[in-house]
Formats: sequence, structure tokens, C-alpha cells
Amino acid sequence: MIYADNAATTKTSPKAIEKMVEVMNNTFGNPSSLYGVGQKAKEELEKSREEVAKVIGANPKEIIFTSGGSEADNQAIISAARLGARKGKKHIISSAFEHHAVLHTLNKLQGEGFEITLLDVHENGLIVPEEVENAIREDTALVTIMFANNEIGTIQPIREIGAICRKKGVLFHTDAVQAIGHVHVNVKEDNIDMLSASSHKFHGPKGVGFLYVKKGIALTNIIEGGAQERGKRAGTENVPGIAGMTVALKEAIEHLDENYESVSAKRDKLIAGLKEIPHCAINGDEKKRLPGNVNFCFEGIEGESLLLLLDDKGIQASSGSACTSGSLDPSHVLLAIGRVHDVAHGSLRLTINEETTDAEIDEIIKSVKEVVEYLRSFSPIWRDLVAGKKEFIL
Amino acid sequence: MIYADNAATTKTSPKAIEKMVEVMNNTFGNPSSLYGVGQKAKEELEKSREEVAKVIGANPKEIIFTSGGSEADNQAIISAARLGARKGKKHIISSAFEHHAVLHTLNKLQGEGFEITLLDVHENGLIVPEEVENAIREDTALVTIMFANNEIGTIQPIREIGAICRKKGVLFHTDAVQAIGHVHVNVKEDNIDMLSASSHKFHGPKGVGFLYVKKGIALTNIIEGGAQERGKRAGTENVPGIAGMTVALKEAIEHLDENYESVSAKRDKLIAGLKEIPHCAINGDEKKRLPGNVNFCFEGIEGESLLLLLDDKGIQASSGSACTSGSLDPSHVLLAIGRVHDVAHGSLRLTINEETTDAEIDEIIKSVKEVVEYLRSFSPIWRDLVAGKKEFIL
Repeated sequence: MIYADNAATTKTSPKAIEKMVEVMNNTFGNPSSLYGVGQKAKEELEKSREEVAKVIGANPKEIIFTSGGSEADNQAIISAARLGARKGKKHIISSAFEHHAVLHTLNKLQGEGFEITLLDVHENGLIVPEEVENAIREDTALVTIMFANNEIGTIQPIREIGAICRKKGVLFHTDAVQAIGHVHVNVKEDNIDMLSASSHKFHGPKGVGFLYVKKGIALTNIIEGGAQERGKRAGTENVPGIAGMTVALKEAIEHLDENYESVSAKRDKLIAGLKEIPHCAINGDEKKRLPGNVNFCFEGIEGESLLLLLDDKGIQASSGSACTSGSLDPSHVLLAIGRVHDVAHGSLRLTINEETTDAEIDEIIKSVKEVVEYLRSFSPIWRDLVAGKKEFIL
Repeated sequence: MIYADNAATTKTSPKAIEKMVEVMNNTFGNPSSLYGVGQKAKEELEKSREEVAKVIGANPKEIIFTSGGSEADNQAIISAARLGARKGKKHIISSAFEHHAVLHTLNKLQGEGFEITLLDVHENGLIVPEEVENAIREDTALVTIMFANNEIGTIQPIREIGAICRKKGVLFHTDAVQAIGHVHVNVKEDNIDMLSASSHKFHGPKGVGFLYVKKGIALTNIIEGGAQERGKRAGTENVPGIAGMTVALKEAIEHLDENYESVSAKRDKLIAGLKEIPHCAINGDEKKRLPGNVNFCFEGIEGESLLLLLDDKGIQASSGSACTSGSLDPSHVLLAIGRVHDVAHGSLRLTINEETTDAEIDEIIKSVKEVVEYLRSFSPIWRDLVAGKKEFIL
């Protein structure tokens, strides 16, 4: 089995699992309790907070642990909206290819009277900082732009966008779910006010993530209750999950540079191989993307059939984001970068990692070539294209 | 070490841990993915949903997995409020001794123009169904009453309250976080429309819980994003946590009757022993309470000192709810049942379980007696009480 869907989720690190088991067995107390086993859990929690903060250049007090990236996105955006509204600022800038955790939260705010500007994503899958600057108004409460896209992997000019927001006095949030553990992120250097992360995207356990929020920015709770997380996120802390995430994050950061280099090289090899297929195109900038992300459109085929046949050959990939895989709509990300419906439907996302071997890359290339050719062999659209009854787009 | 704070959190079941490790290692896929390892995770998720549903007499489609009890409480109450508001119903009935996840959510709704009636909790820690009935108005959107209190363990007449709500056509939610896995709960027989539960209260992992919501009741998301949990709770599902919770729940249910009997007997022995201490009183009805819950007030002492000295003797207990243990305010639960501030401050919660031995019960009784006597020996309040300068309350 070749697992090439690391953007959907990663295999949990054995060291993270070991840590979780250790904490569940020996430090099972409630961190809010005053006695021994509770205080031991509290120490584990605060040690994790320090380590997570250190990785992104933050202060431990600026880290709130959540149940994952979606919750963190929701809380960051709602918080900024509430802060803005108090000053009469009800305009938010984002982009058309954000994750649904961002887009659906913005929809909800729109229903409450917020005005949302979704910036155009260019054909290369990149936001232009100048366009962010031009969109900022007197009443802009927040700019929220993802660090790296979850489908096409393009890495946004976050530092430049952050600098613009700082200059203009506008809060800046980034959904860094796909970036953390894979590329360098430093909230100070990158001028980030709020950042969301998800553990299971960097070999940590599922059901845990964190929100960085710069000192001085008041969070709004989305889960009310006990006084956990300095009163900003109620519910008994998932100490084993948080400790497991921390181990995985430290592991990822320790090997980040070497992984970046080796995975990028394999990605480039995979891209080069797939480009040999006629009438295909890579989605998003070829270089300004996550080291493990490859995303192609193949004309004349359906992405879903492609996936299922690749699965038969032992290759696990995806067409768009896993979060919407049940949907028949084409990817909003591919539409945002200008792919037409027909082409967007024929997409394939392969997200490799440091464990992907060169032999597996060769195997993927060979299999995709075979499957695309096979699917085209009985595709009516392909027949029309070849017969000249329809024009090739790619 | 004697662990007597199972209401704060329980030790994770070894079988649950084993299951989590197995899932993390072998079923790490994203349940939203179309290929093998994703579909295997999906199967694990849906098998868990069926098993959890079966335990409480629900349909699998009526179960939404959450990050815990607090999130479930928040979502249930917000959902009922939104449904009510659409029909012009903006009145909610609850009680003064609910968990903060309920009370703080109700505070938030009050800020949005909802009217909240908090029913009186009688000295015995019980709600009177007739008083629920009398409080219901034409514009009542929801009744939310906890199944068993987290501090004093009293079990409410849920079935009767549910029947009244059914009769009156009002939604009924119960925070069953302390009840599930410890007493029989059946949503059909108990006339429950919505129910919240938390895994780590029944030897499952932390960071996971569930919300039961009767078919036909439309939930409002509190976490927006992907289409997970039938679009009602975004975020990649915590499959290992959910599977671990399910194992723990099944284990708890399998042994529920025998545990109920043996733990109740030990509880009664503990109560009888502590009653020998002069000027003390049990909080809440002596019998209509959770099998493992013992809660006492001791006049003339501070609960926090009591806890720390018990900790020195190897006994881990609590004064109120762990969620508010950092707070200096006396427990809102004890105030709700009519304890005055001074007395409420001298409280002790001991929550035992099936693993607590008779020898440990003896040890707890002996230690509490010693510590109370010791603390009173230099308490100025106690001196005044003994000298007749102040009147004993208990």
C-alpha cells in the first residue's frame, strides 16, 4: 500500500502514541485538580504549551489547546469579528480558496451583517499582497488567509500580508493547518496575530489542535463552561492528546529541513513524471508549494474513478479535500484558480511525505499513467476531444 | 495512593487504551477519504456510533461525536435556543446547580435576549418535577436539567421531567456527563430529547464525548467547516478517541449493575463513617445519588486545607467541581442547596469507584477524621463555635 494522502491525515507517530499511552496510564488526573495526579497532569499540559509555543516563536500564554484546526479557525474568526463589531468594524477579508472551516464561519458572520471580501486567487494559486492592501478598508476587522492551501499546497506570502495588516492596524489570522510541521512558521517574523493548527496533519493524534493568539487579543469562547485554558476554552483538557501532539510536533520540527529537502525532491520527480501524460496540468505554482503536495488535472476523466482505480492498485490518494469528498461539486479551490468544471472534476491530489520512497514515486507515476489512459479509453468526453468535436482546454 | 476523585476524571481503561493504539496504528485514515484505509476508519467510526446509540436506546443517526461534554452541552442548548427563537420562544428553564457548561451558555443566551428561569434546588439536591411543570410557559423553548449532579451526585427525576416536557411540547435536554456508564439511561424510556456525555467520566479517553439528539431536531453547528457528522460538527473525526470511548462505555455498561451494587455499599459505609465526625452534614439526598458520590460539609474548616492534608496522606479528593477548583468562590451547587458561605467552604467530595477497596474506605474515614480534627484544633472559627461566641449551623 502506498499512502499518498498525507494532507487528509498522517499516520500517527509511534513516539506520539507511546507518549499518549504513558500519560493515560500515569498522568490520568484532571489538570484542574489540586492534588498530586492532577498537578502532574497540569505540569504535562503546561510543558506541552511551552514546547508548542517555542516551535512557532510564541509565548506559552498565547497558546490555547483546541479539539483541532476547525475549532481553532472558528474561534479565531469569531473572536476577531466580535472585537471588530465593538468598534463598528464589520468587514472581513479572506480568499476564495480557504478551508471550509474558514469559509463557512465567514458565511455565518455574513448572515449576522458582516461584509466579506473574498480575494481572487490567481491561476498559480497565490494571493497577491498588494491586493490584500487594496481591499483593506476603515471598517476591516480581520484578514484571514491560509498559510498553505490544503488541496493544491501553494504557500502564500504570509509575511508580506502580515506586514501589511500590521501597518494598517488590522488583525491577521492564518489557517496554518497544512503548514505547521512542514515549513518554517514563526508568528513574530511572519507578523501573525492568530494561527490555527491541527495535530493529525503532522503525525500527531486526531482530535487535538491549537490556536495561537497574540497577547492582548481577547478571545470569544465558542465552548462555554469551566475555566480551562484561562477561561477561553471550556472542557477538561485532553492531556494525553496534547502531549502526543507536542511529541509529534517536536519530531517534525527536528527533521523539518532535511524532510523539506528530500520530500521536495521526490515531489519534483513525481511532477515531472506526471507531466508526461498528455493534456494534463499541475494545479498551483510548481515551486511555491508544500514539499509533499502534487495536484494535477487530467482532461477527459472523472477524479473519483481515478481514485478508485488507483486504490485497486494500492495507491491511496484524493481528488480534493477529504472534508468534502462525499460531495459531487467540483473543488472550490480548483474553481478559485480558474479551472472550469469539467477539468476540475478530473483532479488528483497526491500528498507524499518523508517516508515515501523513490520506488513508490515510480510506482505512482506508472499507475497514474495507466489509469488515466484506461479511463480515457472509454470516456465519451475524451472521444469527442480526440475527434475534434470539443476543444482541448489543457 | 487512594484515588477518590472519579467525578473529576477516571483512569482510562486499559482495554480502551489498547483499542486506541490499535486504531492509531492500523486505522489511521481520514474517515472522509474514499480509499481503503479511509473507509476502514469510517467503518470503525460507524460501528462506534451504533454501539454508543445502542447503550442509551437511540438510533445511530441520533449520535453526534464531540470533543467532550462541554461542547455537547453548548451545542444542545444553542440548537434548542435557535429553534425556539424561530417560533418566538425565548424562555429556557434550567436549575441553579447545573454544570457551568450549561449555566454559562445560558448566560450567553440571556445576553442575546433569552429569559432564563433557574429552578430552585431543594435542600436534598433534587428538582421537583411539578415545579418544572409550573415554570413552563407558552414561550418556553427548552428545559435543561442535569441527570446527576457533578458535585453532590444527586440523581434527578429525569423520566418524570421528560414526561412533563413531552406533554407540554417543550424540548428536554439533560447533561448526563456524570450519569452515563454509572446508572441506567435510556433516552426513550426517560423521555429525553437531547443528552450530553463525556468519555473520561466512564474510563474512556479525554477529549471525546457525544451528543444524542432525537431525530427531527435540527442542530445548530458550533464548529463550522467540513461535512463531518452529517454536517453538524466539523473537523476530522477523532476515530481513535471515539473507538476508545466506545470500548470503555461497553465495559461500564456490562458491569453496571454489579458495580452499582458494590459501589453503593461502599459509599454507604463511607457516609456512615464520616457522619461520626461532629458538626458535619452530607450534601444532597443520602440515597438518591450516584453510587460513588459522597459529599460532606464540615463546620469550622476550609475545604482547600482539608484537600491538601488528605493529599499528604495519599488520598486524592476534591472540594467542588474540578472545573472551578482554581476559584475562591464557594461552590454554586452547595449554595444552591442552601448551604451558607462559611459551611460551603468546608466541603469535601469523595467519588469512589468499583476499584475502591473496603480497606481504602476505612483509610479514608480514618484520615478525614484526623484531618478535620487537626484543622479544627487551630481554626479561629471553630474556637468561637466551641466557646459559644458563634452558633453552630450543622
